[in-house]
Amino acid sequence: MTASLERLVVIGCDAAGMSAASQARRRRPAADLRIVAFEKGQHVSYSACGIPYLVAGDVSTPDDLVARTPEEFRKLDIDLRLGCEVVGISLPSRSVTVRSGERTYDEPFDQLVIATGGVPARPDVPGADADGIHGVQTLEDGIRLLSFLEDRAPKRAVVVGAGYIGLEMAEAMIRRGLEVTLIDAADQPMRTLDPDMAGLVANALRDLGVDLRLSCRLSGFSSDAGRVTAVRTDAGTLSADVVILGLGTKPNSALAADAGIAVGASGGIVVDRRQRTSAEGVWAAGDCVEVHHLISQRPTAIALGTHANKQGRAAGINIGGGYATFPGVVGTAVSKICSHEVARTGLTTAEALGAGFEVFSAVTESTTRAGYFPGALPITTKLIAERTTGRLLGAQIVGQEGAAKRIDALAVALWHGMTVEEMTGLDLSYAPPFAPVWDPVLIAARKTAEQLARLRP
Amino acid sequence: MTASLERLVVIGCDAAGMSAASQARRRRPAADLRIVAFEKGQHVSYSACGIPYLVAGDVSTPDDLVARTPEEFRKLDIDLRLGCEVVGISLPSRSVTVRSGERTYDEPFDQLVIATGGVPARPDVPGADADGIHGVQTLEDGIRLLSFLEDRAPKRAVVVGAGYIGLEMAEAMIRRGLEVTLIDAADQPMRTLDPDMAGLVANALRDLGVDLRLSCRLSGFSSDAGRVTAVRTDAGTLSADVVILGLGTKPNSALAADAGIAVGASGGIVVDRRQRTSAEGVWAAGDCVEVHHLISQRPTAIALGTHANKQGRAAGINIGGGYATFPGVVGTAVSKICSHEVARTGLTTAEALGAGFEVFSAVTESTTRAGYFPGALPITTKLIAERTTGRLLGAQIVGQEGAAKRIDALAVALWHGMTVEEMTGLDLSYAPPFAPVWDPVLIAARKTAEQLARLRP
Repeated sequence: MTASLERLVVIGCDAAGMSAASQARRRRPAADLRIVAFEKGQHVSYSACGIPYLVAGDVSTPDDLVARTPEEFRKLDIDLRLGCEVVGISLPSRSVTVRSGERTYDEPFDQLVIATGGVPARPDVPGADADGIHGVQTLEDGIRLLSFLEDRAPKRAVVVGAGYIGLEMAEAMIRRGLEVTLIDAADQPMRTLDPDMAGLVANALRDLGVDLRLSCRLSGFSSDAGRVTAVRTDAGTLSADVVILGLGTKPNSALAADAGIAVGASGGIVVDRRQRTSAEGVWAAGDCVEVHHLISQRPTAIALGTHANKQGRAAGINIGGGYATFPGVVGTAVSKICSHEVARTGLTTAEALGAGFEVFSAVTESTTRAGYFPGALPITTKLIAERTTGRLLGAQIVGQEGAAKRIDALAVALWHGMTVEEMTGLDLSYAPPFAPVWDPVLIAARKTAEQLARLRP
Repeated sequence: MTASLERLVVIGCDAAGMSAASQARRRRPAADLRIVAFEKGQHVSYSACGIPYLVAGDVSTPDDLVARTPEEFRKLDIDLRLGCEVVGISLPSRSVTVRSGERTYDEPFDQLVIATGGVPARPDVPGADADGIHGVQTLEDGIRLLSFLEDRAPKRAVVVGAGYIGLEMAEAMIRRGLEVTLIDAADQPMRTLDPDMAGLVANALRDLGVDLRLSCRLSGFSSDAGRVTAVRTDAGTLSADVVILGLGTKPNSALAADAGIAVGASGGIVVDRRQRTSAEGVWAAGDCVEVHHLISQRPTAIALGTHANKQGRAAGINIGGGYATFPGVVGTAVSKICSHEVARTGLTTAEALGAGFEVFSAVTESTTRAGYFPGALPITTKLIAERTTGRLLGAQIVGQEGAAKRIDALAVALWHGMTVEEMTGLDLSYAPPFAPVWDPVLIAARKTAEQLARLRP
């Protein structure tokens, strides 16, 4: 038996890696499959998406973000090795090279899961290594920032990048009482939205007291005695006691590429629907892979915990001898900044045009509950449809409490290629505390369909 | 021109009737279509679903429930006649007979819309005409109840019927500070849920201080000087200063049936997907019709404002020379009682068995937000699937704030005949303030799919 014991190595012990390991173990006991998992940091299986809320104070300790501890995985007979960085993959010898402190060693595998996550984009400008400049990708990053905020009590924060992380960190800084400047090189926040919908987000940010600087390009950092004092931009210098980098991430695929495993134009590792890479017995999952976008029909890289979990699970089931797939994405995302909610799915107008669609869009105003019901709050919904067929291509929502999660019904409609006209018939739930008699989703579908019909000869 | 002027008569001026009238008018000006609309009451186009919230005090005046006033419709050249009851339809003479006070007259039509709504079920027991026994179907009912509550300050309410209206009225009475007893002849509240999910609702009601009496059959009312003093049941007498009847409604189709228009076994007027009845030029919409259930493939009667609006709109567009359909329903509904939310879509287990499906179901516990996020509240989701194919047949949710509206994503999945396995791949929105990394909908799909897979040989 021992001679035939298969060896699974997992690189990266966050959502994707540990989902894969757990699922493989559920199907194959330790007598059948040996599992070794390497993590370069000290934390495993935590919610990176929760870091802004840890920093804001919504979550009281870093431990709260940990879904499962190393001990829990070890109880499953998963040989979890913390502080161990995999620095090379050799396909010919079917082994990985591991660095642990001073020591370097090779670990053989039969099956390999690459779950190396994302690499945060770091600005290539002078002074970026000054004290007080923080990324917020890993739990270590979050803990470091939290200590900095508690120990140094900075007053002025500059957040670089107005995407999801940038907005969430701007909220965290506001709620901690700091003055916040948010800069972005683009002329809108949230490039994942159309400019008009992003304009609503910009207004919301300004209403919250954020000094939002758009079309503002970072050129460097000033520091005093090694500590950051200002952010330099092409539109002037902004003084800062703390800087947060929210420039997004790229797939961390270098290790795979170096081993000769196929990496796509998106920068993500190429996988099939079962999460198999181009190399036999090598799987990949999470932020390091590229996914199939069901609307653009193109590969894309999207760093999102929910995808990482699903992909890791699929990989693990397949390694365990089952059958599971990750069918692709429609590009759904949601975020909030204080009481403002933002959501999107599918393609933006620009993305749809880029994918070759002729598009039509309409923006609709409604309320989250019946207009007469207490707590009815504004919701703006934009639908993007193919002009000739009326097929839904994308949707965006900006609103207040109760607005954003409506994106899910739109995401499922999009998944099935519904036209906006067909969507007007959908049987969505109605009662005054939950929706107007025409749910905002239905009103948006109806208005878009009506406007589209008027364009037809 | 005047000789050829077409005459549209609308019977009933609530959601369905006035949607039809407005849509017909949008497409055909007064020079082309004369519209006369009859309403036996004094209020038009109001939200009947809002009445419990008017009574509870969430909505400050009855006017707030009115979507559009008679004056607004008259400005659209709709000849709206209040206090006018249509008492007969003659298809041979193409006219309706109208009673207005002492006067009775005939009004001719070319096209007719029947939007007579529902008839509240009234218990056929002695004493039901006592003062203090209130229905809550019409705005007049709601205003009358509100006056009663304000003038007489009753202390003990008995609500008869533990369906949607009964629950909403129980909440209203609790929030007004009354002692509330809720009785139902069935052994569970909310017959639209499976017994186990209804059990969660029963627990919630009892936690709220409602004296819930199940399997308790109404036998009559006691009164003193014409005023109700108690509710008599087969399980004893319950003293009451006010009684609210929440026994549901039946389609108000007698007028149509008397005219020889086809009425189905559900009691609702039979219509096609364009809302045409069996009689040429006669349309029907709203609570008085039966609808096609897309999952059971059977006609059913469902009284719901959102369907009435859609059907009325479709009828009006078709009368106006356009093309619009009401494709049917999947049986989605949502309600709340204080902080507890309840939602369902599709078929219950009993309904699915009744429709001939072999079923499998699973119940899943989760939270509305990431478990570590403040305000993460419990949500219980039950999915009912076809045993052999895994196709979703129905879903039920009981939970707290943020739980119920998740039914919409399930309703759209159901609409498209997805299997629970396919649903595990859905790209639903994720961020810690909005969902755990696996949304409760996805967890429910995953657990149901996993359990179903284990049953297979």
